[in-house]
Amino acid sequence: MITLYTWATPNGRKVSIMLEECGIPYTVRPVDITRGEQFAAEFVAINPNAKIPAIVDDDGPLTVFESGAILVYLAEKCGRLLPTAGPARYAVLQWLMFQIGGVGPMFGQAHHFLRFAPAPVPYAIERYGKETRRLYGVLEARLGEAEYLAGDYSIADIATFPWVARHAWQQVELADFPQVGRWFETVGARPAVQRGMAVPA
Amino acid sequence: MITLYTWATPNGRKVSIMLEECGIPYTVRPVDITRGEQFAAEFVAINPNAKIPAIVDDDGPLTVFESGAILVYLAEKCGRLLPTAGPARYAVLQWLMFQIGGVGPMFGQAHHFLRFAPAPVPYAIERYGKETRRLYGVLEARLGEAEYLAGDYSIADIATFPWVARHAWQQVELADFPQVGRWFETVGARPAVQRGMAVPA
Ligand SMILES: N[C@@H](CCC(=O)N[C@@H](CS)C(=O)NCC(=O)O)C(=O)O
Ligand SMILES: N[C@@H](CCC(=O)N[C@@H](CS)C(=O)NCC(=O)O)C(=O)O
Repeated sequence: MITLYTWATPNGRKVSIMLEECGIPYTVRPVDITRGEQFAAEFVAINPNAKIPAIVDDDGPLTVFESGAILVYLAEKCGRLLPTAGPARYAVLQWLMFQIGGVGPMFGQAHHFLRFAPAPVPYAIERYGKETRRLYGVLEARLGEAEYLAGDYSIADIATFPWVARHAWQQVELADFPQVGRWFETVGARPAVQRGMAVPA
Repeated sequence: MITLYTWATPNGRKVSIMLEECGIPYTVRPVDITRGEQFAAEFVAINPNAKIPAIVDDDGPLTVFESGAILVYLAEKCGRLLPTAGPARYAVLQWLMFQIGGVGPMFGQAHHFLRFAPAPVPYAIERYGKETRRLYGVLEARLGEAEYLAGDYSIADIATFPWVARHAWQQVELADFPQVGRWFETVGARPAVQRGMAVPA
């Protein structure tokens, strides 16, 4: 059995979507990051970086933190959504890394300065707003030449979807990025994605 | 033959270190990001995200961008520095992702606000300075219990080393993080790391 430590955020939902896609049974352990539960000793023993998501798989046994590592782990466990070799494998990994190293951290900074910073910081709003729109432009160009980020539906799409789902927080209109909008509708129509996005209940 | 598109930055040097560790012959193509060469059409055709590093491997043939994806590609090509299965594999991948999604983007923001922003932005200097020190604390704790980030020397260390090499830019003293300092000396003593850190010449 897999235990998923998560919260209602993009990085958490990547993993619940993947578990639903794989049809692997799992138990959800909510970690309320708005109340600092990620700093509890029990959780820091699982993820020393004190962030959700993390999983514990009894059938290992092993613990994995970092959403990108968990997605690769689950893909290799269930044999789906990440080709095992060849150019198609590295196409998935490069678009996954583009999300982990680019989309996630930069949209995250945009969320912070647009919604959470105690006072407006114009330079940072401009910096992260511009980078966010640039990244949407990269996604738009890619999705104009491929149906999904890496060609076929993969963990790269699963990683990116919950971040694009927060486009209103980023003050981005999907109408300005029609290929991203088309992809967002298609991915969002998958039953596993809908179930994963509703975790934790 | 592999062609490496790179510049004298942490993300570029991860890849030259890995190529040196694997002993794979490669040609260096410098992309001067201080002169905007990453936006040239020829390079954007290789990496639509217009950032170094990227590689082209004739023996594929294939193109890979995103340093994290390139490290996994090279590890799987040369059969070293990333175990093929089991808990040791996912320990490497989680610490690699910790660098790609945490250390890289956050130290990068610290570099920007401490060195490159046109005017001081106190809120951002405080925000990214604090997060940088917190991340050094996570590395310190981990390196107090393991010799290398994932136990044995791996692509997780290769990814992290060139960022820690810029500790002066982050206004961090390694004396404050003695385990990180010990690890930094050990990794930095490897001939392949020294050769990789000198690329591009
Ligand atoms: N690179 C990490 C980022 C994880 C992350 O930032 N998690 C956020 C929620 S989306 C969190 O736990 N924040 C609480 C905190 O930073 O204290 C991953 O992809 O797993
Ligand atoms: N997540 C990417 C980040 C790459 C990156 O930020 N590269 C920098 C140099 S270290 C760059 O090309 N900057 C030029 C620019 O952003 O225009 C990776 O790990 O490869």
